[in-house]
Amino acid sequence: MKPPPKKKRKGPPRRNVRLEIEYDGTRYFGWQVQDGKQTVQGELERAIREIAGAPATLIGSGRTDAGVHAVGQTANFHTACRIPDAKWPLALNAHLPSDIRVVSAKEVPLDFHAQFGAKRKTYVYTVLNRDVASAIERDHCHHVRRPLDVAAMNEGAQHLVGTHDFRAFGSEMSDKEKTVRTIDKAHVMVDRALVRFLFRGTGFLYNQVRAMVGTLLDVGLGKVSPGHVKAVLEGKDRTKAGANVPAKGLCLISVEYE
Amino acid sequence: MKPPPKKKRKGPPRRNVRLEIEYDGTRYFGWQVQDGKQTVQGELERAIREIAGAPATLIGSGRTDAGVHAVGQTANFHTACRIPDAKWPLALNAHLPSDIRVVSAKEVPLDFHAQFGAKRKTYVYTVLNRDVASAIERDHCHHVRRPLDVAAMNEGAQHLVGTHDFRAFGSEMSDKEKTVRTIDKAHVMVDRALVRFLFRGTGFLYNQVRAMVGTLLDVGLGKVSPGHVKAVLEGKDRTKAGANVPAKGLCLISVEYE
Repeated sequence: MKPPPKKKRKGPPRRNVRLEIEYDGTRYFGWQVQDGKQTVQGELERAIREIAGAPATLIGSGRTDAGVHAVGQTANFHTACRIPDAKWPLALNAHLPSDIRVVSAKEVPLDFHAQFGAKRKTYVYTVLNRDVASAIERDHCHHVRRPLDVAAMNEGAQHLVGTHDFRAFGSEMSDKEKTVRTIDKAHVMVDRALVRFLFRGTGFLYNQVRAMVGTLLDVGLGKVSPGHVKAVLEGKDRTKAGANVPAKGLCLISVEYE
Repeated sequence: MKPPPKKKRKGPPRRNVRLEIEYDGTRYFGWQVQDGKQTVQGELERAIREIAGAPATLIGSGRTDAGVHAVGQTANFHTACRIPDAKWPLALNAHLPSDIRVVSAKEVPLDFHAQFGAKRKTYVYTVLNRDVASAIERDHCHHVRRPLDVAAMNEGAQHLVGTHDFRAFGSEMSDKEKTVRTIDKAHVMVDRALVRFLFRGTGFLYNQVRAMVGTLLDVGLGKVSPGHVKAVLEGKDRTKAGANVPAKGLCLISVEYE
Protein backbone atom coordinates (compact mmCIF):
# COMPACT_ATOMS: atom_id res chain seq x y z
CA MET A 1 0.00 0.00 0.00
CA LYS A 2 1.24 3.35 -0.92
CA PRO A 3 1.66 5.64 2.06
CA PRO A 4 -0.32 8.83 1.90
CA PRO A 5 1.73 11.74 0.60
CA LYS A 6 3.61 13.46 3.36
CA LYS A 7 1.90 16.66 4.25
CA LYS A 8 4.46 19.33 4.78
CA ARG A 9 3.31 20.62 8.11
CA LYS A 10 3.49 24.35 7.99
CA GLY A 11 2.69 26.13 11.24
CA PRO A 12 0.20 28.94 11.29
CA PRO A 13 1.69 32.32 10.47
CA ARG A 14 3.35 33.70 13.57
CA ARG A 15 3.11 37.23 14.90
CA ASN A 16 5.42 39.22 17.11
CA VAL A 17 3.59 41.21 19.80
CA ARG A 18 5.17 43.99 21.82
CA LEU A 19 3.75 44.78 25.25
CA GLU A 20 4.14 47.80 27.46
CA ILE A 21 3.81 46.74 31.09
CA GLU A 22 3.36 48.45 34.47
CA TYR A 23 4.05 46.56 37.67
CA ASP A 24 4.45 46.99 41.38
CA GLY A 25 7.55 44.92 42.13
CA THR A 26 6.88 44.61 45.87
CA ARG A 27 5.49 41.06 45.83
CA TYR A 28 7.83 39.67 43.16
CA PHE A 29 11.27 38.12 42.99
CA GLY A 30 12.04 40.47 40.15
CA TRP A 31 11.27 40.25 36.46
CA GLN A 32 12.99 37.06 35.36
CA VAL A 33 11.47 33.57 35.60
CA GLN A 34 13.02 31.55 38.43
CA ASP A 35 12.01 28.09 39.56
CA GLY A 36 9.48 28.17 42.34
CA LYS A 37 9.51 31.95 42.69
CA GLN A 38 6.80 34.40 41.81
CA THR A 39 8.15 36.69 39.10
CA VAL A 40 6.64 39.26 36.76
CA GLN A 41 7.80 37.43 33.62
CA GLY A 42 6.40 34.20 35.04
CA GLU A 43 2.98 35.73 35.68
CA LEU A 44 2.90 37.25 32.19
CA GLU A 45 3.96 34.01 30.46
CA ARG A 46 1.24 32.13 32.36
CA ALA A 47 -1.36 34.69 31.26
CA ILE A 48 -0.20 34.51 27.61
CA ARG A 49 -0.37 30.72 27.73
CA GLU A 50 -3.90 30.86 29.13
CA ILE A 51 -5.02 33.27 26.43
CA ALA A 52 -3.10 31.92 23.43
CA GLY A 53 -3.48 28.27 24.37
CA ALA A 54 0.23 27.67 23.80
CA PRO A 55 3.37 28.56 25.70
CA ALA A 56 5.41 31.57 24.62
CA THR A 57 8.67 33.02 25.82
CA LEU A 58 8.43 36.65 26.77
CA ILE A 59 11.54 38.69 26.01
CA GLY A 60 11.88 41.66 28.34
CA SER A 61 13.94 44.79 27.63
CA GLY A 62 15.98 43.73 30.64
CA ARG A 63 15.64 42.27 34.08
CA THR A 64 14.49 44.24 37.08
CA ASP A 65 15.41 43.10 40.60
CA ALA A 66 13.08 42.04 43.38
CA GLY A 67 11.20 45.10 44.64
CA VAL A 68 11.93 47.27 41.57
CA HIS A 69 8.87 48.75 39.86
CA ALA A 70 8.07 49.66 36.27
CA VAL A 71 5.57 51.88 34.51
CA GLY A 72 7.05 51.32 31.04
CA GLN A 73 8.71 47.92 30.91
CA THR A 74 8.65 46.59 27.35
CA ALA A 75 8.63 42.97 26.20
CA ASN A 76 7.75 40.91 23.13
CA PHE A 77 6.59 37.38 22.33
CA HIS A 78 5.85 35.34 19.24
CA THR A 79 2.46 33.74 18.91
CA ALA A 80 0.09 32.19 16.39
CA CYS A 81 -2.81 33.73 18.25
CA ARG A 82 -4.76 36.24 16.14
CA ILE A 83 -6.11 38.47 18.90
CA PRO A 84 -6.04 42.07 17.60
CA ASP A 85 -3.69 44.58 19.25
CA ALA A 86 -6.37 46.45 21.16
CA LYS A 87 -7.74 43.27 22.77
CA TRP A 88 -4.48 41.91 24.20
CA PRO A 89 -4.36 44.23 27.25
CA LEU A 90 -7.96 43.42 28.21
CA ALA A 91 -7.46 39.68 27.71
CA LEU A 92 -4.13 39.48 29.54
CA ASN A 93 -5.19 41.78 32.40
CA ALA A 94 -8.14 39.51 33.09
CA HIS A 95 -5.60 36.73 33.75
CA LEU A 96 -3.10 38.83 35.73
CA PRO A 97 -2.95 39.91 39.37
CA SER A 98 -3.84 43.57 39.91
CA ASP A 99 -0.21 44.57 40.58
CA ILE A 100 0.75 43.75 36.96
CA ARG A 101 -1.02 45.56 34.11
CA VAL A 102 -0.44 45.34 30.40
CA VAL A 103 -0.86 48.95 29.31
CA SER A 104 -0.66 48.45 25.55
CA ALA A 105 0.05 45.83 22.89
CA LYS A 106 1.17 46.26 19.30
CA GLU A 107 2.10 43.88 16.52
CA VAL A 108 5.69 44.57 15.45
CA PRO A 109 8.00 43.16 12.74
CA LEU A 110 9.05 39.55 13.38
CA ASP A 111 12.65 40.60 14.03
CA PHE A 112 11.80 43.07 16.79
CA HIS A 113 13.64 42.04 19.97
CA ALA A 114 12.75 43.93 23.18
CA GLN A 115 16.20 43.42 24.70
CA PHE A 116 18.61 43.78 21.79
CA GLY A 117 16.56 46.49 20.08
CA ALA A 118 16.36 48.77 23.12
CA LYS A 119 18.11 52.07 22.34
CA ARG A 120 17.46 54.06 25.46
CA LYS A 121 16.04 53.53 28.94
CA THR A 122 14.84 55.96 31.57
CA TYR A 123 14.86 55.16 35.28
CA VAL A 124 13.66 57.26 38.20
CA TYR A 125 14.80 56.65 41.75
CA THR A 126 12.67 58.22 44.52
CA VAL A 127 13.90 59.29 47.95
CA LEU A 128 11.64 60.60 50.69
CA ASN A 129 13.66 63.26 52.52
CA ARG A 130 11.92 64.11 55.76
CA ASP A 131 11.98 63.12 59.38
CA VAL A 132 9.33 60.40 59.25
CA ALA A 133 8.92 57.61 56.69
CA SER A 134 5.81 57.51 54.48
CA ALA A 135 2.92 55.19 55.32
CA ILE A 136 1.47 55.42 51.83
CA GLU A 137 4.64 55.42 49.70
CA ARG A 138 6.57 53.02 51.97
CA ASP A 139 7.17 50.45 49.19
CA HIS A 140 7.95 53.04 46.51
CA CYS A 141 10.65 55.24 48.00
CA HIS A 142 13.80 55.09 50.07
CA HIS A 143 13.62 57.09 53.28
CA VAL A 144 16.50 59.45 54.11
CA ARG A 145 16.04 61.39 57.32
CA ARG A 146 18.88 63.94 57.17
CA PRO A 147 18.44 66.94 54.84
CA LEU A 148 19.89 66.52 51.36
CA ASP A 149 21.73 69.19 49.39
CA VAL A 150 19.95 68.86 46.06
CA ALA A 151 22.11 71.42 44.23
CA ALA A 152 25.26 69.49 45.19
CA MET A 153 23.70 66.21 44.06
CA ASN A 154 22.73 67.77 40.74
CA GLU A 155 26.28 69.03 40.29
CA GLY A 156 27.63 65.54 41.05
CA ALA A 157 25.09 63.94 38.68
CA GLN A 158 26.38 65.95 35.72
CA HIS A 159 29.72 64.09 35.92
CA LEU A 160 27.79 60.95 34.98
CA VAL A 161 26.48 62.43 31.73
CA GLY A 162 28.37 61.30 28.63
CA THR A 163 29.98 58.10 27.42
CA HIS A 164 31.99 56.54 30.21
CA ASP A 165 33.25 53.25 31.55
CA PHE A 166 30.79 52.79 34.44
CA ARG A 167 32.67 49.82 35.96
CA ALA A 168 32.85 51.61 39.34
CA PHE A 169 29.04 51.56 39.58
CA GLY A 170 28.36 48.00 38.37
CA SER A 171 27.92 44.76 40.30
CA GLU A 172 28.72 41.13 39.51
CA MET A 173 30.65 41.87 36.31
CA SER A 174 33.36 39.71 34.84
CA ASP A 175 36.58 41.52 33.90
CA LYS A 176 35.73 40.92 30.26
CA GLU A 177 32.29 42.47 30.39
CA LYS A 178 31.89 45.64 28.40
CA THR A 179 31.11 48.40 30.86
CA VAL A 180 31.00 51.47 28.64
CA ARG A 181 27.59 53.11 28.52
CA THR A 182 26.20 56.50 27.54
CA ILE A 183 24.02 58.58 29.85
CA ASP A 184 22.45 61.56 28.08
CA LYS A 185 20.41 62.88 31.00
CA ALA A 186 20.94 62.85 34.75
CA HIS A 187 18.80 65.11 36.85
CA VAL A 188 17.78 65.48 40.49
CA MET A 189 14.35 67.02 41.07
CA VAL A 190 12.52 68.06 44.23
CA ASP A 191 8.76 67.70 44.73
CA ARG A 192 7.96 68.70 48.32
CA ALA A 193 9.60 66.00 50.50
CA LEU A 194 10.33 63.75 47.51
CA VAL A 195 13.68 63.85 45.75
CA ARG A 196 13.73 62.12 42.37
CA PHE A 197 16.83 61.03 40.48
CA LEU A 198 16.25 60.62 36.75
CA PHE A 199 18.73 58.81 34.48
CA ARG A 200 18.31 58.29 30.77
CA GLY A 201 20.88 56.32 28.80
CA THR A 202 21.69 53.62 26.28
CA GLY A 203 21.64 51.02 29.00
CA PHE A 204 22.82 50.43 32.53
CA LEU A 205 25.03 47.85 34.20
CA TYR A 206 23.57 45.57 36.83
CA ASN A 207 22.80 47.74 39.90
CA GLN A 208 24.31 50.81 38.24
CA VAL A 209 21.42 53.17 38.96
CA ARG A 210 21.26 52.11 42.60
CA ALA A 211 25.03 52.63 43.02
CA MET A 212 24.94 56.03 41.30
CA VAL A 213 22.11 57.18 43.58
CA GLY A 214 23.97 55.85 46.63
CA THR A 215 27.02 57.88 45.60
CA LEU A 216 24.94 61.01 44.97
CA LEU A 217 23.30 60.62 48.39
CA ASP A 218 26.79 60.70 49.92
CA VAL A 219 27.22 64.01 48.09
CA GLY A 220 23.81 65.25 49.28
CA LEU A 221 24.65 64.39 52.88
CA GLY A 222 27.94 66.27 52.62
CA LYS A 223 30.09 63.16 53.15
CA VAL A 224 31.87 63.77 49.85
CA SER A 225 32.06 66.62 47.34
CA PRO A 226 30.30 66.63 43.94
CA GLY A 227 33.74 66.12 42.34
CA HIS A 228 33.97 62.77 44.15
CA VAL A 229 31.51 61.36 41.58
CA LYS A 230 34.02 62.09 38.81
CA ALA A 231 36.86 60.57 40.81
CA VAL A 232 34.85 57.37 41.42
CA LEU A 233 33.95 57.13 37.73
CA GLU A 234 37.57 57.57 36.64
CA GLY A 235 38.95 55.27 39.35
CA LYS A 236 36.78 52.34 38.10
CA ASP A 237 36.85 50.85 41.60
CA ARG A 238 33.47 49.68 42.92
CA THR A 239 34.60 50.01 46.53
CA LYS A 240 34.91 53.78 46.12
CA ALA A 241 31.28 54.31 45.05
CA GLY A 242 28.42 54.68 47.51
CA ALA A 243 26.29 51.78 48.74
CA ASN A 244 23.51 50.44 46.53
CA VAL A 245 20.29 52.07 47.67
CA PRO A 246 17.27 49.78 48.27
CA ALA A 247 15.40 48.36 45.26
CA LYS A 248 11.98 49.68 46.30
CA GLY A 249 12.84 53.29 45.28
CA LEU A 250 13.64 52.32 41.69
CA CYS A 251 11.19 52.46 38.79
CA LEU A 252 11.78 51.73 35.10
CA ILE A 253 9.95 54.59 33.37
CA SER A 254 10.35 53.83 29.68
CA VAL A 255 12.28 51.94 27.03
CA GLU A 256 12.82 53.50 23.62
CA TYR A 257 13.37 51.73 20.29
CA GLU A 258 14.32 53.03 16.87
CA MET B 1 -8.70 52.55 116.19
CA LYS B 2 -8.58 55.68 114.22
CA PRO B 3 -8.45 55.08 110.50
CA PRO B 4 -5.46 56.54 108.73
CA PRO B 5 -6.19 59.95 107.23
CA LYS B 6 -7.60 59.64 103.76
CA LYS B 7 -4.95 60.54 101.28
CA LYS B 8 -6.46 62.59 98.54
CA ARG B 9 -5.10 60.72 95.57
CA LYS B 10 -3.97 63.25 93.05
CA GLY B 11 -2.80 61.80 89.74
CA PRO B 12 0.36 63.03 88.09
CA PRO B 13 -0.14 66.18 86.02
CA ARG B 14 -1.74 65.22 82.73
CA ARG B 15 -0.83 66.44 79.28
CA ASN B 16 -2.80 66.61 76.06
CA VAL B 17 -0.85 65.50 73.00
CA ARG B 18 -1.95 66.19 69.43
CA LEU B 19 -0.73 63.84 66.69
CA GLU B 20 -0.61 64.26 62.95
CA ILE B 21 -0.93 60.86 61.31
CA GLU B 22 -0.43 59.38 57.85
CA TYR B 23 -1.88 55.98 56.98
CA ASP B 24 -2.55 53.64 54.13
CA GLY B 25 -6.09 52.48 54.82
CA THR B 26 -5.91 49.40 52.57
CA ARG B 27 -5.40 46.82 55.33
CA TYR B 28 -7.71 48.42 57.92
CA PHE B 29 -11.38 48.35 58.79
CA GLY B 30 -11.26 52.13 58.90
CA TRP B 31 -10.20 54.50 61.64
CA GLN B 32 -12.50 53.65 64.52
CA VAL B 33 -11.86 50.90 67.07
CA GLN B 34 -14.12 47.89 66.48
CA ASP B 35 -14.09 44.62 68.35
CA GLY B 36 -11.91 42.04 66.69
CA LYS B 37 -11.08 44.22 63.69
CA GLN B 38 -7.80 45.81 62.77
CA THR B 39 -8.30 49.58 62.78
CA VAL B 40 -6.00 52.59 62.64
CA GLN B 41 -7.21 53.97 65.98
CA GLY B 42 -6.77 50.52 67.52
CA GLU B 43 -3.16 50.25 66.33
CA LEU B 44 -2.37 53.75 67.60
CA GLU B 45 -3.99 53.19 71.01
CA ARG B 46 -1.99 49.97 71.39
CA ALA B 47 1.24 51.80 70.54
CA ILE B 48 0.44 54.62 73.00
CA ARG B 49 -0.29 52.05 75.74
CA GLU B 50 3.02 50.29 75.04
CA ILE B 51 4.95 53.56 75.22
CA ALA B 52 3.08 55.33 78.02
CA GLY B 53 2.50 52.21 80.13
CA ALA B 54 -1.17 53.08 80.53
CA PRO B 55 -4.19 53.02 78.27
CA ALA B 56 -5.35 56.22 76.58
CA THR B 57 -8.31 57.03 74.38
CA LEU B 58 -7.31 58.61 71.10
CA ILE B 59 -9.77 61.21 69.80
CA GLY B 60 -9.64 61.48 66.01
CA SER B 61 -10.82 64.49 64.00
CA GLY B 62 -13.35 62.10 62.52
CA ARG B 63 -13.71 58.56 61.31
CA THR B 64 -12.46 57.36 57.98
CA ASP B 65 -13.96 54.28 56.34
CA ALA B 66 -12.26 51.00 55.48
CA GLY B 67 -9.84 51.62 52.61
CA VAL B 68 -9.73 55.42 53.00
CA HIS B 69 -6.24 56.90 53.40
CA ALA B 70 -4.88 59.94 55.24
CA VAL B 71 -1.77 62.06 55.07
CA GLY B 72 -2.97 64.58 57.65
CA GLN B 73 -5.37 62.88 60.06
CA THR B 74 -5.27 64.62 63.44
CA ALA B 75 -5.97 63.13 66.86
CA ASN B 76 -5.29 63.84 70.53
CA PHE B 77 -4.91 61.89 73.76
CA HIS B 78 -4.36 62.68 77.44
CA THR B 79 -1.42 61.09 79.19
CA ALA B 80 0.77 61.40 82.27
CA CYS B 81 3.75 60.33 80.19
CA ARG B 82 6.44 63.03 80.00
CA ILE B 83 8.00 62.13 76.66
CA PRO B 84 8.90 65.41 74.90
CA ASP B 85 7.04 66.35 71.68
CA ALA B 86 9.87 65.53 69.32
CA LYS B 87 10.28 62.00 70.70
CA TRP B 88 6.67 60.85 70.37
CA PRO B 89 6.78 60.13 66.60
CA LEU B 90 9.97 58.08 66.94
CA ALA B 91 8.66 56.17 69.94
CA LEU B 92 5.21 55.46 68.49
CA ASN B 93 6.48 54.62 64.99
CA ALA B 94 8.74 51.97 66.51
CA HIS B 95 5.56 50.28 67.80
CA LEU B 96 3.42 50.77 64.68
CA PRO B 97 3.15 48.83 61.41
CA SER B 98 4.82 50.59 58.47
CA ASP B 99 1.48 51.58 56.91
CA ILE B 100 0.74 53.92 59.85
CA ARG B 101 3.18 56.76 60.63
CA VAL B 102 2.94 59.46 63.25
CA VAL B 103 4.31 62.48 61.40
CA SER B 104 4.37 64.96 64.29
CA ALA B 105 3.34 65.38 67.92
CA LYS B 106 2.73 68.54 69.91
CA GLU B 107 1.55 69.26 73.43
CA VAL B 108 -1.65 71.33 73.26
CA PRO B 109 -3.93 72.94 75.89
CA LEU B 110 -5.85 70.42 77.97
CA ASP B 111 -9.16 71.45 76.39
CA PHE B 112 -8.05 70.81 72.80
CA HIS B 113 -10.38 68.25 71.22
CA ALA B 114 -9.43 66.91 67.77
CA GLN B 115 -13.04 66.28 66.74
CA PHE B 116 -14.98 69.22 68.20
CA GLY B 117 -12.18 71.72 67.60
CA ALA B 118 -11.76 70.93 63.89
CA LYS B 119 -12.58 74.03 61.83
CA ARG B 120 -11.80 72.85 58.33
CA LYS B 121 -10.93 69.63 56.53
CA THR B 122 -9.46 68.98 53.10
CA TYR B 123 -10.05 65.77 51.18
CA VAL B 124 -8.70 64.70 47.81
CA TYR B 125 -10.31 61.98 45.72
CA THR B 126 -8.18 60.47 42.95
CA VAL B 127 -9.47 58.93 39.72
CA LEU B 128 -7.26 57.26 37.14
CA ASN B 129 -8.78 58.09 33.77
CA ARG B 130 -7.23 55.87 31.14
CA ASP B 131 -7.91 52.61 29.41
CA VAL B 132 -5.97 50.34 31.75
CA ALA B 133 -5.96 50.32 35.57
CA SER B 134 -2.75 51.15 37.44
CA ALA B 135 -0.59 48.37 38.87
CA ILE B 136 1.23 50.72 41.22
CA GLU B 137 -1.62 53.02 42.33
CA ARG B 138 -4.27 50.28 42.35
CA ASP B 139 -5.17 50.79 46.04
CA HIS B 140 -5.04 54.60 45.88
CA CYS B 141 -7.30 55.54 43.00
CA HIS B 142 -10.58 54.67 41.36
CA HIS B 143 -10.27 53.57 37.75
CA VAL B 144 -12.58 55.16 35.17
CA ARG B 145 -12.03 53.95 31.62
CA ARG B 146 -14.15 56.37 29.58
CA PRO B 147 -12.76 59.89 29.01
CA LEU B 148 -13.91 62.49 31.51
CA ASP B 149 -14.85 66.08 30.68
CA VAL B 150 -12.87 67.88 33.36
CA ALA B 151 -14.15 71.37 32.50
CA ALA B 152 -17.76 70.19 32.92
CA MET B 153 -16.90 68.51 36.25
CA ASN B 154 -15.27 71.72 37.46
CA GLU B 155 -18.34 73.68 36.47
CA GLY B 156 -20.54 71.23 38.35
CA ALA B 157 -18.23 71.31 41.38
CA GLN B 158 -18.71 75.08 41.78
CA HIS B 159 -22.38 74.51 42.65
CA LEU B 160 -21.16 72.73 45.79
CA VAL B 161 -19.19 75.75 47.04
CA GLY B 162 -20.96 77.72 49.76
CA THR B 163 -23.17 76.94 52.74
CA HIS B 164 -25.77 74.37 51.77
CA ASP B 165 -27.90 71.58 53.14
CA PHE B 166 -25.93 68.60 51.79
CA ARG B 167 -28.59 66.02 52.73
CA ALA B 168 -28.69 64.74 49.13
CA PHE B 169 -25.04 63.64 49.41
CA GLY B 170 -25.09 62.09 52.89
CA SER B 171 -25.62 58.51 54.00
CA GLU B 172 -27.18 56.94 57.09
CA MET B 173 -28.54 60.19 58.52
CA SER B 174 -31.51 60.53 60.81
CA ASP B 175 -34.11 63.12 59.77
CA LYS B 176 -33.06 65.20 62.76
CA GLU B 177 -29.37 65.29 61.89
CA LYS B 178 -28.04 68.68 60.97
CA THR B 179 -26.90 68.48 57.38
CA VAL B 180 -25.84 72.03 56.63
CA ARG B 181 -22.14 72.38 55.90
CA THR B 182 -19.90 74.94 54.21
CA ILE B 183 -17.53 74.08 51.38
CA ASP B 184 -15.14 76.92 50.58
CA LYS B 185 -13.16 75.16 47.86
CA ALA B 186 -14.07 72.53 45.27
CA HIS B 187 -11.67 71.93 42.44
CA VAL B 188 -11.00 69.26 39.82
CA MET B 189 -7.36 69.01 38.69
CA VAL B 190 -5.68 66.95 35.98
CA ASP B 191 -2.18 65.48 36.30
CA ARG B 192 -1.55 63.31 33.25
CA ALA B 193 -4.00 60.38 33.56
CA LEU B 194 -4.93 61.28 37.13
CA VAL B 195 -7.96 63.42 37.90
CA ARG B 196 -8.05 64.78 41.43
CA PHE B 197 -11.12 66.19 43.18
CA LEU B 198 -10.27 68.52 46.06
CA PHE B 199 -12.85 69.60 48.64
CA ARG B 200 -12.20 71.89 51.57
CA GLY B 201 -14.91 72.67 54.07
CA THR B 202 -16.09 72.96 57.65
CA GLY B 203 -16.95 69.29 57.73
CA PHE B 204 -18.58 66.62 55.64
CA LEU B 205 -21.48 64.26 56.17
CA TYR B 206 -20.88 60.54 56.21
CA ASN B 207 -19.96 59.50 52.63
CA GLN B 208 -20.52 63.05 51.36
CA VAL B 209 -17.24 63.35 49.45
CA ARG B 210 -17.72 59.97 47.78
CA ALA B 211 -21.27 60.88 46.73
CA MET B 212 -20.19 64.30 45.42
CA VAL B 213 -17.45 62.69 43.34
CA GLY B 214 -19.88 60.05 42.06
CA THR B 215 -22.22 62.83 40.95
CA LEU B 216 -19.42 64.80 39.31
CA LEU B 217 -18.28 61.67 37.45
CA ASP B 218 -21.80 61.43 35.99
CA VAL B 219 -21.23 64.99 34.76
CA GLY B 220 -17.77 64.11 33.42
CA LEU B 221 -19.16 61.13 31.53
CA GLY B 222 -21.87 63.31 29.98
CA LYS B 223 -24.73 61.43 31.66
CA VAL B 224 -25.98 64.65 33.25
CA SER B 225 -25.23 68.36 32.84
CA PRO B 226 -23.16 70.44 35.32
CA GLY B 227 -26.44 72.06 36.41
CA HIS B 228 -27.65 68.66 37.61
CA VAL B 229 -25.34 69.06 40.63
CA LYS B 230 -27.30 72.13 41.71
CA ALA B 231 -30.61 70.36 41.17
CA VAL B 232 -29.50 67.41 43.29
CA LEU B 233 -28.30 69.72 46.07
CA GLU B 234 -31.58 71.65 46.09
CA GLY B 235 -33.72 68.51 45.80
CA LYS B 236 -32.18 67.05 49.00
CA ASP B 237 -32.97 63.57 47.72
CA ARG B 238 -30.12 61.04 48.06
CA THR B 239 -31.49 58.88 45.26
CA LYS B 240 -30.86 61.69 42.77
CA ALA B 241 -27.12 61.95 43.47
CA GLY B 242 -24.53 59.70 41.84
CA ALA B 243 -23.30 56.46 43.35
CA ASN B 244 -20.69 56.55 46.13
CA VAL B 245 -17.31 56.01 44.50
CA PRO B 246 -15.00 53.39 46.09
CA ALA B 247 -13.21 54.25 49.35
CA LYS B 248 -9.70 53.55 48.04
CA GLY B 249 -9.56 56.79 46.01
CA LEU B 250 -10.20 58.98 49.05
CA CYS B 251 -7.50 60.62 51.16
CA LEU B 252 -7.87 62.98 54.14
CA ILE B 253 -5.26 65.63 53.42
CA SER B 254 -5.44 67.95 56.40
CA VAL B 255 -7.47 69.12 59.37
CA GLU B 256 -7.28 72.75 60.49
CA TYR B 257 -7.88 74.17 63.97
CA GLU B 258 -8.11 77.73 65.25
